[in-house]
Amino acid sequence: MAEFFNVLAPDRALHTLLDRLPRRLAVETVPTPQALGRVTADAIVALESLPAFARSTMDGYAVRASDTFGASESLPAYLEVAGEVPMGQAPDITLTTGQAALAYTGGMLAKDADAVVMVENTQQIDATSIEVFRPVAPGENVVQVGEDVRCGEPILPAGSLLRPQDIGGLLALGITQVNVCRRPVVAIVSTGDEIVAPEATPGPGQIRDINTYTIAAMVQQAGGIPVSLGVIRDDYEVQRQAAVDGLLQADMLVFSAGSSVSSRDITVQVLESLGLPGVLVHGIAHRPGKPTIIALVDGKPAFGLPGNPVSAMIVFRLLVRPTLYALAGCTQPPQAPMVRARLTRNIPSITGREDHVQVRLFTADGMLQAEPIFGKSNLIYTLIRAAGTVVVPLDQGGLYAGEEVSVQLYH
Amino acid sequence: MAEFFNVLAPDRALHTLLDRLPRRLAVETVPTPQALGRVTADAIVALESLPAFARSTMDGYAVRASDTFGASESLPAYLEVAGEVPMGQAPDITLTTGQAALAYTGGMLAKDADAVVMVENTQQIDATSIEVFRPVAPGENVVQVGEDVRCGEPILPAGSLLRPQDIGGLLALGITQVNVCRRPVVAIVSTGDEIVAPEATPGPGQIRDINTYTIAAMVQQAGGIPVSLGVIRDDYEVQRQAAVDGLLQADMLVFSAGSSVSSRDITVQVLESLGLPGVLVHGIAHRPGKPTIIALVDGKPAFGLPGNPVSAMIVFRLLVRPTLYALAGCTQPPQAPMVRARLTRNIPSITGREDHVQVRLFTADGMLQAEPIFGKSNLIYTLIRAAGTVVVPLDQGGLYAGEEVSVQLYH
Repeated sequence: MAEFFNVLAPDRALHTLLDRLPRRLAVETVPTPQALGRVTADAIVALESLPAFARSTMDGYAVRASDTFGASESLPAYLEVAGEVPMGQAPDITLTTGQAALAYTGGMLAKDADAVVMVENTQQIDATSIEVFRPVAPGENVVQVGEDVRCGEPILPAGSLLRPQDIGGLLALGITQVNVCRRPVVAIVSTGDEIVAPEATPGPGQIRDINTYTIAAMVQQAGGIPVSLGVIRDDYEVQRQAAVDGLLQADMLVFSAGSSVSSRDITVQVLESLGLPGVLVHGIAHRPGKPTIIALVDGKPAFGLPGNPVSAMIVFRLLVRPTLYALAGCTQPPQAPMVRARLTRNIPSITGREDHVQVRLFTADGMLQAEPIFGKSNLIYTLIRAAGTVVVPLDQGGLYAGEEVSVQLYH
Repeated sequence: MAEFFNVLAPDRALHTLLDRLPRRLAVETVPTPQALGRVTADAIVALESLPAFARSTMDGYAVRASDTFGASESLPAYLEVAGEVPMGQAPDITLTTGQAALAYTGGMLAKDADAVVMVENTQQIDATSIEVFRPVAPGENVVQVGEDVRCGEPILPAGSLLRPQDIGGLLALGITQVNVCRRPVVAIVSTGDEIVAPEATPGPGQIRDINTYTIAAMVQQAGGIPVSLGVIRDDYEVQRQAAVDGLLQADMLVFSAGSSVSSRDITVQVLESLGLPGVLVHGIAHRPGKPTIIALVDGKPAFGLPGNPVSAMIVFRLLVRPTLYALAGCTQPPQAPMVRARLTRNIPSITGREDHVQVRLFTADGMLQAEPIFGKSNLIYTLIRAAGTVVVPLDQGGLYAGEEVSVQLYH
């Protein structure tokens, strides 16, 4: 029953792996409308200007600005209405001094117009003339060519996670295909002689497999493709074969080791046996999740997560999720939503260890309060009843009741 | 060119619709492992206790606690090791006074054991005996039956958005199927004579359709299924037919109206013509997005969003997204991630109108700074360059440089 003597701080453990990761995954081209949540493989540059023509930002009249100078309620400018420029059409009207043409939001201006008067600042006199009550400056109420994006301007760096507005911005420029990183495939192996499938009725001493499914769901949330290899018993050869199969078809391997010591020993031996450099980290200075294994096998990351489902999920968020984003080349992974709340009770910890403590949230005294949910770390329902997590940093011996803390919300 | 005289505050506008919405969508049963992001249709109750047997939380020795009372480094308790209880098996050992049995994390205890001594607090003397250096209380290092969840306990209320841990918690109890609300189907119609498909080269005065795609992406993010009906020209009969088709196949209709006044007039007429009660709101006290239309057509919500893509996206987040979650019966939609930052410049606004202002974020003086991106609200790239949004509430005339504000991050 070995203990872990060389535990690493979670952040150092992660970087021990990330610093050795080979380049991100291969590139594939997808239609832009289907690229939500994908990561750009290259920097993207505008090959057109947006807008491509000067557009009115208001409903009103395109004018020559100088014709409105000095106009006021008491001394309006009188302009002749030369016609309209319909939406989606080039103007066939050219303004001369003293003329105006109907312009619509988003539409082109009449030729030789340089500003738009809002309809609210005009009054129609008859079918062909208006009064203008306020002057406009040249360019007023007009978006100029390239004012949104100029041709040649970089619009998205490589490694951008594509959001709805990014998809819109690309399509606006006619970029209908985009190079993105392939989605990482993650092989998931759940091990332990005590584990049975969720649909089974567990016998004495047996429990249902849940790690396969919680890990698969978290892989999906991080943009990966989970592949489950099922529940594998605590046998070195059988586990090794599952690991080899997993690495053949996937970009990353995640073992959740059964909780028994023998099973933990098997996982580290299996991960060590697969390829170089092998196991990089065995044990992290973190609660829960100390008995975590990080390996790199011929360029592919492999994790041995604790068998306890709560620890497995927390270590996934801490180490596996950032590795998935790194594989996809994503430079700024989405942040977990955070709220500030006042701690209702002391959280004891020890210096040199990072603790994640589940909290319930409620409002009292006009402020959000975070109530730590103590209790055994292996109870999955603590994660379900909790709204989020408070982190006690490595260098702190605990947190005090009454302190304002950041709560990372689950999602 | 009509203006909007009866604008409603965004929150009141939303509730005008939600208060009239009929019951949430129909229920369907899905396998629990595929239920990530779905919304529970019923309250779920545990039909088993978890754990189903008393489990060790440590690697060590199951003991009768009273045998360890008074044990210390200088005066250890000597116990006979009667054997082990392997993982996943019922114990075939019954302890008598003075006996211990090997126990593994997550495993069952030997019969008549009531506590577990951590292996760290023991020393093996020979093959069949150990010394125990510290006493344990009855129940120590043991999770009792039902300590996680008791049979009959409510585990998830109706309207819960299922997270990875919820899927794990359901499967742990053998709940392999779950009743969820059907995903809302949303018909999207982009209108405007100036709009061409993204793959087309726009002629003079024309622009590419992007609202279809940004709206579809946001529908997906909110758990809905987008159905695009394409770009429809500014013609009442054609638009009305598209709306009728959309409502036949979808649970919600979203028009993004071309920006021209004629087009806006068509949308309101179309939404008014389809069924009762028809248009509920025409105009919201919000910038951008004032010319928004909210209708209810024979129980199905219908929105007329501004044609301007920025306004369309912001109004979607403000009104359409919460309506989608309401249709699915979700009681607590996920929150947008928020950060606190110091405003670098004044944001002018007017009382009685809610403003959403895009901001860039950077760090200076050891604190996150939010730099407002002013400029015309119809530039899609302001949404791309921005990290998030600052809201100027309805009852405030603006925000001051130096104020600490909440920034809603895009995701």
